[in-house]
Amino acid sequence: MAEKFVSMRNLKFLLYEVFDAESITQYPYFQDHNREVFDMVLETGLKMGKDIMYPLLAEMDKKPPEFVDGMVKVHPMVRPLMKACGEGGWIAAHAPYDRGGQQIPSMIISSFRFIFAAANYSASVYPFLSAGAAHLIESFGTGELIEAYVPKMYSGDWQGTMALTEPQAGSSLTDIMTTAESTAEGHYKIKGQKIFISAADHDGVDNVVNLLLARIKGAPPGVKGISLFVVPKKRIGRNGELVDNDVTTAGIYHKLGYRGSPITQLSLGDNGDCCGWLVGEPHQGLRYMFQLMNEARIEVGMGATAIASAAYYASLEYTKERPQGRRMTTKDPTQPQVPIIEHADIKRMLLFQRAVVEGSLCVAVQCAKYVDLIHVLSGEEKQKYALLLDLLTPIAKTYPSEMGILSVSAGLQCLGGYGYCDEFPLEQYYRDVRIHPIHEGTTGIQGMDLLGRKVVMQNGKAFLLFQEEVEKTIQEASAFKEIASQAGALKDAMERLKDVTTHLSGLALAGKVEFFLADATLYLEFFGIITIAWQWLIQAITAQRALAKGQPEAEANFYRGKMYAFRFFFSYELPKIEGLARRLKESDGLTVEMKEEFFSD
Amino acid sequence: MAEKFVSMRNLKFLLYEVFDAESITQYPYFQDHNREVFDMVLETGLKMGKDIMYPLLAEMDKKPPEFVDGMVKVHPMVRPLMKACGEGGWIAAHAPYDRGGQQIPSMIISSFRFIFAAANYSASVYPFLSAGAAHLIESFGTGELIEAYVPKMYSGDWQGTMALTEPQAGSSLTDIMTTAESTAEGHYKIKGQKIFISAADHDGVDNVVNLLLARIKGAPPGVKGISLFVVPKKRIGRNGELVDNDVTTAGIYHKLGYRGSPITQLSLGDNGDCCGWLVGEPHQGLRYMFQLMNEARIEVGMGATAIASAAYYASLEYTKERPQGRRMTTKDPTQPQVPIIEHADIKRMLLFQRAVVEGSLCVAVQCAKYVDLIHVLSGEEKQKYALLLDLLTPIAKTYPSEMGILSVSAGLQCLGGYGYCDEFPLEQYYRDVRIHPIHEGTTGIQGMDLLGRKVVMQNGKAFLLFQEEVEKTIQEASAFKEIASQAGALKDAMERLKDVTTHLSGLALAGKVEFFLADATLYLEFFGIITIAWQWLIQAITAQRALAKGQPEAEANFYRGKMYAFRFFFSYELPKIEGLARRLKESDGLTVEMKEEFFSD
Repeated sequence: MAEKFVSMRNLKFLLYEVFDAESITQYPYFQDHNREVFDMVLETGLKMGKDIMYPLLAEMDKKPPEFVDGMVKVHPMVRPLMKACGEGGWIAAHAPYDRGGQQIPSMIISSFRFIFAAANYSASVYPFLSAGAAHLIESFGTGELIEAYVPKMYSGDWQGTMALTEPQAGSSLTDIMTTAESTAEGHYKIKGQKIFISAADHDGVDNVVNLLLARIKGAPPGVKGISLFVVPKKRIGRNGELVDNDVTTAGIYHKLGYRGSPITQLSLGDNGDCCGWLVGEPHQGLRYMFQLMNEARIEVGMGATAIASAAYYASLEYTKERPQGRRMTTKDPTQPQVPIIEHADIKRMLLFQRAVVEGSLCVAVQCAKYVDLIHVLSGEEKQKYALLLDLLTPIAKTYPSEMGILSVSAGLQCLGGYGYCDEFPLEQYYRDVRIHPIHEGTTGIQGMDLLGRKVVMQNGKAFLLFQEEVEKTIQEASAFKEIASQAGALKDAMERLKDVTTHLSGLALAGKVEFFLADATLYLEFFGIITIAWQWLIQAITAQRALAKGQPEAEANFYRGKMYAFRFFFSYELPKIEGLARRLKESDGLTVEMKEEFFSD
Repeated sequence: MAEKFVSMRNLKFLLYEVFDAESITQYPYFQDHNREVFDMVLETGLKMGKDIMYPLLAEMDKKPPEFVDGMVKVHPMVRPLMKACGEGGWIAAHAPYDRGGQQIPSMIISSFRFIFAAANYSASVYPFLSAGAAHLIESFGTGELIEAYVPKMYSGDWQGTMALTEPQAGSSLTDIMTTAESTAEGHYKIKGQKIFISAADHDGVDNVVNLLLARIKGAPPGVKGISLFVVPKKRIGRNGELVDNDVTTAGIYHKLGYRGSPITQLSLGDNGDCCGWLVGEPHQGLRYMFQLMNEARIEVGMGATAIASAAYYASLEYTKERPQGRRMTTKDPTQPQVPIIEHADIKRMLLFQRAVVEGSLCVAVQCAKYVDLIHVLSGEEKQKYALLLDLLTPIAKTYPSEMGILSVSAGLQCLGGYGYCDEFPLEQYYRDVRIHPIHEGTTGIQGMDLLGRKVVMQNGKAFLLFQEEVEKTIQEASAFKEIASQAGALKDAMERLKDVTTHLSGLALAGKVEFFLADATLYLEFFGIITIAWQWLIQAITAQRALAKGQPEAEANFYRGKMYAFRFFFSYELPKIEGLARRLKESDGLTVEMKEEFFSD
């Protein structure tokens, strides 16, 4: 079975050569760190991935969580994993020193998470869901709330979750119906149902802390009446003991993949005794939740990339070892067969995977860098990166999620019939990766977020900033003759993007809101391809510089491979924008005007 | 759970309105049949599909075949299904009266199979694999061989298979190593290994008849030395009794999907006692096998379409019933939610599925019509349809197989989180449909078949005939103002196709064979999209004629829906050829020149 699931060489290329992660240590908040610390974090991630997580990949899939006597039983590795992540400081790594954290930059800790997710996506979800939930309490909760819950979440003893979805309100958060009634004691009584909540109950921890959206009685309708609560499975009693908080697990789901993680259905307050503690101000819950949601969206993209990375290396290994057929130029059947990696169509499928994986990872690190810069900068500079991050979030979530499916599928295809069988991990990766266009906001939701909100917000300010960033890259790339033609292609693509965006904005201004957003998903795909082309051009500049300096053979091969993947993206992927642009400019309202009764037969 | 898996209205639209299936009864071979007989066949297929096959869809997936004590145990429904198909005459339906068949046209019997496959793909494989294998013996075997094996295959007592693949020879049939040694008794002694053989051993039948490729000792190397044999699991002894034929099942595969059908690994002649009977002439085996292979390829495309059809109707039902969110124009949260089918993005996903399913089914019926015409015509006319069928086979196999995956994925996406869970059948369809780009020749193999063989054969004669057929449709469509613009778009697309083909043929003529075929898979995708656009234009002509005549409301809605799906294909799918054409004309040898060592990190 394949052993490699991630390229550390590529990760370091992105962190140190492309995005200069060390430069962040010039800011006081990160000043204690340096390259050695960063490398140590990454190497620890790899070691834990190899030793603890990857060996259980198939087993956790084959023995998914069970719901027995009202209890969710997960794989026995979950408890030691949570403890190890807590003790190693990995759940709190991002947090400030005074909260018990290590102030590790997002670029580094998200790379650590990437390695974990590539080793075993389901297992990686437990600790990092806690990290995000704890971060949310830290950001908006009272000191009391932080003290009560966050340390146990950081230590890995308690699980954090995000509890949004309800049976009648999937993508439509407006329709959340879980209620919160204030009490004289200051907390609220919670009552309602939540579905599809990851890890909201399991025996790998001693307690679960749900970050939950609910509606305070009398709140305004819609999203303006949603508040955020901490609703633990067991609340802390007067003497510090844990008391059952009337949070009942109604069941878990049987899923296509991502089976190592339990997705639960919760019933809150069946006996009128479920307590919740308000986080921040009333009716501001959705705004707070979006901090966690946005982090989670980028992490979903990263998770998809991680699975696609593991699938890529598994298929690469197979294609190097499997003899089959001969080169086109030597069809003599008496000659020995060649490894299938020598066939152009196999190389096409490998390059496709590499182009998707490394392009997606690049945008994830780019976003992580923005997170770090937002943390240390202020004023206009801070706002600039905040806007860029806002704009890129739906893309960083969706491009890897959608293309990750195709990437893993190409990996599976490289193995032929064996790819379809469970002797190799590809079929599991194929199932696992399918979750990503669904959770934390479907692709359809992301498309509307990008076009209906992000591109037009502040009179298109984020979009203008994006254009400036891309333009800088194009300028820089134009100086290298080896990549100047691709720089030109990206310039043309940006013109198309502006043209299409202007056209669509025109529909919005004319009040044709349904026509404006009808093809938002296609617009997201279109914008996503151009964004990844930009990320590939950034990588190509670095690779060209490195090659120009002269490199030992192994290093030169890495950069040459980079250049092929870069060329591949511009030759095979970027041209897809042509058909998309054509459709996006039609705006004939085809899908708006199609009627249900026309689907009748 | 969804109950509808196929649209009989659409099937009849294609058979009777588009392709005038009744016209085939003007030929003596089919003269006993008429519309009533055809309808009876289809209704019986639907009844069997609903009563026997569909109810076991999930169960056969959850309880896949087991390999116990050297025996393959399949679901207990397989035996009665095989008997029912035998007794109903469905396995022999295509065969001539004097072979116990019913001389049913391919258009009708393949529609019957389509219904079966939509109801339960795994279950449908058993009887129709027998039909193809029996047809192969009939076509090339001696009277003795036919008499000995075919009746039991047609009656459903014995299973037929096609046994090509070997451990060292997957896609590379050149490298088949199974040997056949002639004996004084006239039969051969077989020795070797076969893998990935569908249904080659199971307890739903009394015997298995493998149509197997092997190499007679001393045969020339490569494909010119391959012969075809009948190698039963149990051979017929002197007194008609069944005798063990030294065919051992080494195991079965655990698969992503398509789990109701056992895929086996065979060891032949371990004890030197495996007898095989030569079919036809020595060393002509591959040519014979291609009859079965080509039939199987079209059936694979049909199977993919069938699964996508079932997924489409399951998702359609859900979207009509599931309330979520509101129209863009009425965002008031106090208003009730609407069924999600009212959202443009959901309609886009439904129209995409319909465009893929009905476009794919159309080309399958088109191919079946060619099969029927080849059967009844002679001379140049016969040759014309044989060439068209040859050309379209890789497309009829691959377009539905590749696009079926995306179509089912869109269906799954319509259900959001529920699509990922096994309460609904989408996740199973998603797993099942992934087999099709792999079996009976991978997509890569189909691409090389189309570009490297079919398009260039007989100086491009098949390709010219194809152009003439499409041109006829464009001419006809140009008369209808409602579809004239799409007729123009198809005309442009055909120019692109000719242009790209001329460009690529130029590389072949210049001896640059690796560059010529490097992007054959993309060429197949490109050609496939244009072919399906042609099929949609054919359907639109019929729909326009029907609408022009005036129709009752329900009928009018069917045709209006057809027109939306047609417009969808031309607006959303056909433009994809632009990016493909751009890449196909680059021919820079990127994937040829990429080296293994550049993948090293």
